[in-house]
Formats: sequence, C-alpha cells, structure tokens
Amino acid sequence: MNTPDPLSATLSALADPTRRAILARLARGEATVNELAAPFDISLPAVSRHLKVLEQAGLISRGREAQWRPCRLEAAPLEAVAGWVERYRRFWDGSFDRMDDYIAQLTKGDPDGDRH
Amino acid sequence: MNTPDPLSATLSALADPTRRAILARLARGEATVNELAAPFDISLPAVSRHLKVLEQAGLISRGREAQWRPCRLEAAPLEAVAGWVERYRRFWDGSFDRMDDYIAQLTKGDPDGDRH
Repeated sequence: MNTPDPLSATLSALADPTRRAILARLARGEATVNELAAPFDISLPAVSRHLKVLEQAGLISRGREAQWRPCRLEAAPLEAVAGWVERYRRFWDGSFDRMDDYIAQLTKGDPDGDRH
Repeated sequence: MNTPDPLSATLSALADPTRRAILARLARGEATVNELAAPFDISLPAVSRHLKVLEQAGLISRGREAQWRPCRLEAAPLEAVAGWVERYRRFWDGSFDRMDDYIAQLTKGDPDGDRH
C-alpha cells in the first residue's frame, strides 16, 4: 500500500460516524480521551484507535502532558475538503437550472426558439 | 460489517484520487467507461471497480443502454459533504480571530479590561 495523498487520508478518516462525532465534540473545545469516550458506547481503546486515525490525518492534535493529552480540532484538512467539494457547487445550487431559464428567455421572442 | 451511513459511504468513495479524477472528468459531461479509462494508466476492470464504488455511493448514475452505459455525475452526495464540512468553517475562516479583535475592542475603554 502506498501512503495516501493528504486529501484521501482526510476523507478516509472522516468516513466514520464516530470519528465525525468526536470532531463535533472537539468543535466545542478541547477534551481528554475520557471525556471523548463518555458519550459513546465503545471502549477506551476503540476511542484511542479513532483518535490515532484522526491525528494521522492531521484532523486533531494532542497536548504534551503525558497524563491528560487533551485533543484539539485542527481545521486545515477540513478546509481542504471544503475547497475540493466547492468546485462542484454549480451542480447542486441550481445554477444549471438558471442557465436553462436564461436560454429560455433568450429564445422566447425567436419563432424558431423552441424548434431547435 | 454494517452498511455504512450515506455520508460515510460518500466520504469513503471520495477517499481515492482516481475516483476523484473520474468525478472531475464527469463534471465536464457524461462519459463512457472507455472514455473515463483513457487518461488513466489502469485497466478497464479497475476503472469499472471504481465506477461501481462511485455508483453505490450515489455519486454517479449510468445510462441503460447495455453497450454504452454513459456515466454521469450525481451531485446530491457532494452537497451533503459540503453541508457537513461547512459547519466547521468558523475554524478556518478567521472568525475566531475576529471575535478576539471584537472582544479587544469592547474592553479597550475598560480599565479592568485587560486585568481579567
């Protein structure tokens, strides 16, 4: 296996509802592993594995104090995802439909407008 | 394995540079498997496997004609990704810094402003 490119690593890390829930919690502020594990019905080691995936993708960073090591959200990879998906916005925000309307307007006065 | 939730399935399908390149090509218009395979140095079966992943995630649809089955981009799952990542925008667009500036402004005239 090759090392995935950064955007692929980010998307892969985000492709899990528990990991996304962990990020949502960290959006409210730093938290320790115990605090992050509390709302989930999964073991502490399982949470630790999720955190490792998030950390490797650069989506979280962890404090240095050995006992606490609070996790914090790192937004740069999310910004990259937003930048990537933004290129496709015209496919869902109706600008295609508006173009159709515009063309319909243009051809309205043209007797051949709807014969093409 | 449980069936992943739709957003996880989308993110997982997008976590591959070839699949993202296929979507970028389809953003320019419908294409057949052969047309999609041409720019990539991978086999037709490998492209077909990628298309199957994209189709299962709802990111593309395919025509019915047995011989051609042109692929087309389906944007709804991308809109869901954009909606999800948008919630984190404040972490990268500087609105946190602006909040700091705003609080600094508010406390400027207050002699205790920087003593708290």
